[in-house]
Amino acid sequence: MIYLDHASATPVNKKVLTAMTPYFAEEFFNPSAPYLPAKHVREAYEDAKNRLAHTIGAKGTDIIITSGATEAIHLALSNFSNILALATEHPAVLQNAKHLTDVKVKPDGRIDLDDFKQKLTNQTEVISVSLVNNEIGVIQPLAEISAIIREERLKRLEKGIKNPLYFHSDASQALNLLDINVSRLGVDMMTLNGAKIGATKGIGALFVAHGVKLQPVIRGGGQEQGLRSGTENVPGVIGFALASELAKSHLSSNRQKYSEYRQLFLKELQRHLPDFQPTRPKKASNSPYCLTFKHQIPTFLPLIFPRVDAERLIYKLEKKQVYVSTGAACAASKGQKSHVLTALGLPDDEVAGSLRISLGSTNTKEQIIKGAHFIATAVKEEYARQAR
Amino acid sequence: MIYLDHASATPVNKKVLTAMTPYFAEEFFNPSAPYLPAKHVREAYEDAKNRLAHTIGAKGTDIIITSGATEAIHLALSNFSNILALATEHPAVLQNAKHLTDVKVKPDGRIDLDDFKQKLTNQTEVISVSLVNNEIGVIQPLAEISAIIREERLKRLEKGIKNPLYFHSDASQALNLLDINVSRLGVDMMTLNGAKIGATKGIGALFVAHGVKLQPVIRGGGQEQGLRSGTENVPGVIGFALASELAKSHLSSNRQKYSEYRQLFLKELQRHLPDFQPTRPKKASNSPYCLTFKHQIPTFLPLIFPRVDAERLIYKLEKKQVYVSTGAACAASKGQKSHVLTALGLPDDEVAGSLRISLGSTNTKEQIIKGAHFIATAVKEEYARQAR
Repeated sequence: MIYLDHASATPVNKKVLTAMTPYFAEEFFNPSAPYLPAKHVREAYEDAKNRLAHTIGAKGTDIIITSGATEAIHLALSNFSNILALATEHPAVLQNAKHLTDVKVKPDGRIDLDDFKQKLTNQTEVISVSLVNNEIGVIQPLAEISAIIREERLKRLEKGIKNPLYFHSDASQALNLLDINVSRLGVDMMTLNGAKIGATKGIGALFVAHGVKLQPVIRGGGQEQGLRSGTENVPGVIGFALASELAKSHLSSNRQKYSEYRQLFLKELQRHLPDFQPTRPKKASNSPYCLTFKHQIPTFLPLIFPRVDAERLIYKLEKKQVYVSTGAACAASKGQKSHVLTALGLPDDEVAGSLRISLGSTNTKEQIIKGAHFIATAVKEEYARQAR
Repeated sequence: MIYLDHASATPVNKKVLTAMTPYFAEEFFNPSAPYLPAKHVREAYEDAKNRLAHTIGAKGTDIIITSGATEAIHLALSNFSNILALATEHPAVLQNAKHLTDVKVKPDGRIDLDDFKQKLTNQTEVISVSLVNNEIGVIQPLAEISAIIREERLKRLEKGIKNPLYFHSDASQALNLLDINVSRLGVDMMTLNGAKIGATKGIGALFVAHGVKLQPVIRGGGQEQGLRSGTENVPGVIGFALASELAKSHLSSNRQKYSEYRQLFLKELQRHLPDFQPTRPKKASNSPYCLTFKHQIPTFLPLIFPRVDAERLIYKLEKKQVYVSTGAACAASKGQKSHVLTALGLPDDEVAGSLRISLGSTNTKEQIIKGAHFIATAVKEEYARQAR
C-alpha cells in the first residue's frame, strides 16, 4: 500500500495507542468522581491538557477539549455573528459562520490583505484564517493578519466602538510541520485536530486566549471550564497530548524529510511525464503541473492534470494500492468540485483533473518513487485514451 | 478494589477494546475518502451504526452519532424553545433547554402525569424524560407519556395548531438492564451513551425518528446525514455497537444477577446496621435507609444516612478501596447538593448523607458482601463519632 492522503486521516501512532490503552479498561474512572483513582485520572487528564497546550505555547486552562476540529471551530464561531473568512477555508469554517463574508486569496494562495482590510468593518467580530490550508497546504501569514487586527482594535477603542474583534485560526493541518506559538502568531482562538497527527479520531481542542469571552454551546455537567460539557474523553486526550509532543519533537526532521520527498516526487513525475511542470505555468497551458507555492508545507502536492477525470485516476491508482484523494474527503464524497482551487482561479478542466497528494508518517522514499511512477503511468494512459 | 460507581463510568469491555483496536492504526482511513480501504471503513462504520440501532429497534439511518450523551441531548433540545423536563433530569437536559418548565415527580420517583398534562401547552415543543434516572435508577413510564403526547397532537391537529411536539428520552443509564424499543416506547428522539455500557468515553448517539425535523448544530463536512459534521469516530462507534449488543444479549441474566446482588447488599447492610431500612420509612425518622422504588433498575442503591456527612464516608471508604459517589460525578465535583433527592422531598440532612451505589460489570458477590460491610462500618463510626 502507498497511502498518499495523510491530510484526510492518519494512523494512530503506536506510542500514542500504547499511552491511551490503560485509560480504556484500567484507569477508566470518571475524572469528576470524588475518590482517589478518579482523582488520579483527573491529574493525568489535566497533565495531558497542559502538555498539549505547551506545544502551542499555551496553558492547559486555555484549552477546551472537543470531539474534533469541526466542533472546536463551531465553538469558536457560533458565539459570533459577523465573520470574515478566507474563501479557501474548510467547510467547517464556512458553514458554521452565521453572517459570512469571504476574503479573497491572491494567486500565491495567501490572504489578499487589501481585500481583508476593505472588508473589515466596525461590525466584524471574528476573522477566521486557517494556518495551513487543507487542500493546497498554503501557510497563511497569521502574524501579519493579527497586526492589522491589533490596529483595528485600537481604532475601535478610540472611536468608542465596543464590539469584540477576535482572530481564529484552524491549525488542523499544521502541527506536524510548523512550530506554533499562539502569542507569536497573535491568535485569540486556535483549533487543533488530533486525527491529523497520529492521535485518534474524535478528539480536538480549541485554544481560547485570556479575555476572549465565549458562551458554552453544549451545556450540562460543566466540564472544560464550563464551556463544553460531557464526560471527558480521557484516552483521547492522553493520546492527543503525546501525538502533539511527538509532532513537535520531529518538526525539523519532518520538514527536511518531507522537503526531500516532495522534491523526489516532483522529479519522478517529471521523469515519467516530460511535460510535467513542478510549478503552475505562468501562462495557461495544457501541461500537467504541481500547485507549488512559496509558503506551503512540504507534505502537500496538489497535482493538476488538465482535462483528465480525477475520479478515473483515483480508481486506476486504487488498483495499484496507491491511495490519493481529490481534496477534502468530506467534500469529495459528495462530488463537490474544490472551492479552494476555484478560488485560486483555476479553470474547471484543471479543477476536475486535480489530485491532492499529502505525504506523511506511513511513507518511505521507495513509496514516493513508486507512487510517482504509478501516478504518471495512470495519467499517461488517460491522455492516450483521450488522444484515441 | 470494590468499584460501586458504574453509573459514573464503566471500564471498556475487553471484547469491545479488541473490536476497536484495528480501527486505530490499521483501518484508520477516513470513511469519506474515495478509495477501497476507506470504503471498507465506511462499510464497517455503517454496519456498526446499524447494529447499534437494531438494539433499540431502529435503523442505522435513524441514528446520529455524537461525542457522548451530553452532545446528543444538546442536539435534541437546542433545536427547540419550549421544553418540559422532569425536575430530576440530568443537568445536560436541564441546562440545554432554552425555555424550561419543570415537571414534578411523585414520591415514587416517577413523573407526575397530572402535573405534566397541566403544564403541557400549545407552545410546548419537546418533553424530555429520561428512561432511567442517573441518581436513583427510577424507570419512567415512557409509553404512558407518549400516549398523552399522541392525544395532544390530535388535539392540536383539530385546532390547526402547527408547532411540533416531540418526545425525547435520555436512555444513558438504561441499556444494560432494559429492553429498549423506540416504537414501543413511543419516543421521537432518544439519547444513548457508550461510556455507561463498556464502550469508550466520547461516544454517544441520538435516535431521531422519521418526520422529526432537526437543524444541524455542528456544521461542516456534512457527516451523519448532515446533522452532525466532523470526521467519524470510527473506533468509538465500532466499540459502541458491540457494547450495546453485549448489553442486549445479557439483559435477562443481568437483571437476575443484579437483583440478587441488590438483595444481598441490603441484607448485609441490615445485618451490620440493625436500624437500616431497605425502603424509605413512611414516617420521617433518623434511620438509615435505601431509596428503593417499585420501578427501579436493580443496579441502583441510593443509600440515605441521615445526619452523616457523605463526603467523609467517601473518604473513609476510599481508604478501604471502596469507591462510591454522592450522585452525578459532574455535580458532585462542584459540591452541589442533589437536585434529584431534593425534588423527591428529602430533607437537607438526608440529602447530605446520601451515597449513590451503582452496581456493574466489575462486581462479584464477594465484593457486594465486603462492600456492604465496609459501608456499614464507616457509617457506624460516623454515628459513634457524632454520639461522642
